[in-house]
Amino acid sequence: MATQPAVRASRSSRRTSTHLPVTRFDRRLGQILEHATEVFCLKGYEGASMRDLSRATGMSLAGLYHYFQSKERLLYLIQKHTFTTILESLKARLESVTDPEERIHIFILNHLEYFVSNQPGLKVLSHEDESLKNGFSSEIAGIKREYYRICLGLMEDLRQKRGLDFNTRTAVMSLFGMINWIYTWYNPRVDGNAEALAERMGNLVLNGIVHGSKRPLKGQSVLTNLRHR
Amino acid sequence: MATQPAVRASRSSRRTSTHLPVTRFDRRLGQILEHATEVFCLKGYEGASMRDLSRATGMSLAGLYHYFQSKERLLYLIQKHTFTTILESLKARLESVTDPEERIHIFILNHLEYFVSNQPGLKVLSHEDESLKNGFSSEIAGIKREYYRICLGLMEDLRQKRGLDFNTRTAVMSLFGMINWIYTWYNPRVDGNAEALAERMGNLVLNGIVHGSKRPLKGQSVLTNLRHR
Repeated sequence: MATQPAVRASRSSRRTSTHLPVTRFDRRLGQILEHATEVFCLKGYEGASMRDLSRATGMSLAGLYHYFQSKERLLYLIQKHTFTTILESLKARLESVTDPEERIHIFILNHLEYFVSNQPGLKVLSHEDESLKNGFSSEIAGIKREYYRICLGLMEDLRQKRGLDFNTRTAVMSLFGMINWIYTWYNPRVDGNAEALAERMGNLVLNGIVHGSKRPLKGQSVLTNLRHR
Repeated sequence: MATQPAVRASRSSRRTSTHLPVTRFDRRLGQILEHATEVFCLKGYEGASMRDLSRATGMSLAGLYHYFQSKERLLYLIQKHTFTTILESLKARLESVTDPEERIHIFILNHLEYFVSNQPGLKVLSHEDESLKNGFSSEIAGIKREYYRICLGLMEDLRQKRGLDFNTRTAVMSLFGMINWIYTWYNPRVDGNAEALAERMGNLVLNGIVHGSKRPLKGQSVLTNLRHR
């Protein structure tokens, strides 16, 4: 597929990821959260018991209560871990890139890369959106709001730099729908890897925005570059 | 927003809806399913009890078991009722329209019109996708497959008639993600009614497909018409 030169040039930047120090405890916590995610995915948060979680994580019921206190706190830790990982990786990847179309491509790839290899996680996040209460809920809502605002900022940046006129909220929410819904259908053998999928979805959204805009573009260069990506 | 003349001309066809004979029983059944949907939406299928459903529908627990047998059968009836209604209305609306872009706009509007006025229903359908077992599950899967195939057919039709080259599966699944995800964010005061939202989402998807296609268009007319819809 032919691709905009500016995009090709900085493509490597999409691969940058954060390398935080990982302790043995972090790894073990990560594994426990992964097993708990699978249980929540299969049985739903309401349907899963601490006994199910104990069986799946290999921790004793007493140990599970000692370290995690409650089922709700486990769900909170899953959500916090997921969103923090995605956010940190996104920020690192965006740091060196200024082209607005490329930045949106990076956002899509970063999101898909994480969830393509973690489909149960995406399902749990989507379904148990309202299962957390009070303090837990508001902290997670804050992280999600930051993620939403970054995406909205990327769209605003595209709108201003290219002199476009489109509804940024509809564009952001449509994009979130596209990339979150993949847990219901994505199949690597049919749909290719995260990069291939991100390329197709990125083209769909960017061409949709740029060519669906009410205000004409400042120059024809972007339009020509985007047409046959 | 400037609009393609061909689309304006047949716009009235989008409003066509089926008028099936509705009995007093149908109306009462519809009300019960609506109340049950709200309970499943609030508590989740696993978390909702027949007692909760009895309270919400105003039926005695004995009556609920007598008429509906089980919680699972209630969920099955909700899903069947929803998908059948959407499918019938879609088929009626598509009957008189041949323009491929317009047909995709009709698909989007039909879906959004139903779910904008029935957000809890969309949430329950999305979340309880796998809660039905065996016979119930396969019948609903059949109706959903028909709905998916209609949308895939509309995309194939667009691809062939306009000589485009794009991945129809990604396009269909991206579209489903966009229009299904609205239960998490749609707000009529901010986002306008179903028609306004369908217009914006339709433009995004159609421009994204047409201008993101790898093969050039047969003529420039579609391209010009679509650019500033």
